[in-house]
Amino acid sequence: MARVVVDVSLKPEILDPQGRAVQGALGRLGLEGVADVRQGKQFVIELEGELDQEQRAKLEELAGSLLSNPVIEDYTVSINESTDSGSTAGAN
Amino acid sequence: MARVVVDVSLKPEILDPQGRAVQGALGRLGLEGVADVRQGKQFVIELEGELDQEQRAKLEELAGSLLSNPVIEDYTVSINESTDSGSTAGAN
Repeated sequence: MARVVVDVSLKPEILDPQGRAVQGALGRLGLEGVADVRQGKQFVIELEGELDQEQRAKLEELAGSLLSNPVIEDYTVSINESTDSGSTAGAN
Repeated sequence: MARVVVDVSLKPEILDPQGRAVQGALGRLGLEGVADVRQGKQFVIELEGELDQEQRAKLEELAGSLLSNPVIEDYTVSINESTDSGSTAGAN
């Protein structure tokens, strides 16, 4: 089992009105000194078995096309092999 | 300068139709062995100066109320002090 995390964020030169709204709200709610907030997306992908070279290449390709918009977004792919991906039991 | 990253994800027992759609698309586009996909949000917060105890407590509180919905979402807060938070120059 491998867990792959793809973080997608707006490129620094792209305005982020959602992040700006959160920045304002954090200030109003009492957090001082907030210089900037950017909001992004995170995909957590669980894959069966070990990752082979072909899957890694495919993941990179899809992170840059399906999961992010290359015109306005950057992405990072972190691969964590052989995670003990806990159960999905409905506690709480 | 401190950089705080707040990752917000749906609780495991909550259905994630958006993640399910991405899972289907990854399979159709040629990535084999995808067992699960969950989509979450990521907030990158830049704070001026060093983080004091009060700011840390406030961050925890706001991560669990403003940035996430405690009924359906979990969050993690990672604090990275004194980052050299690069310039926002518009390369590319």
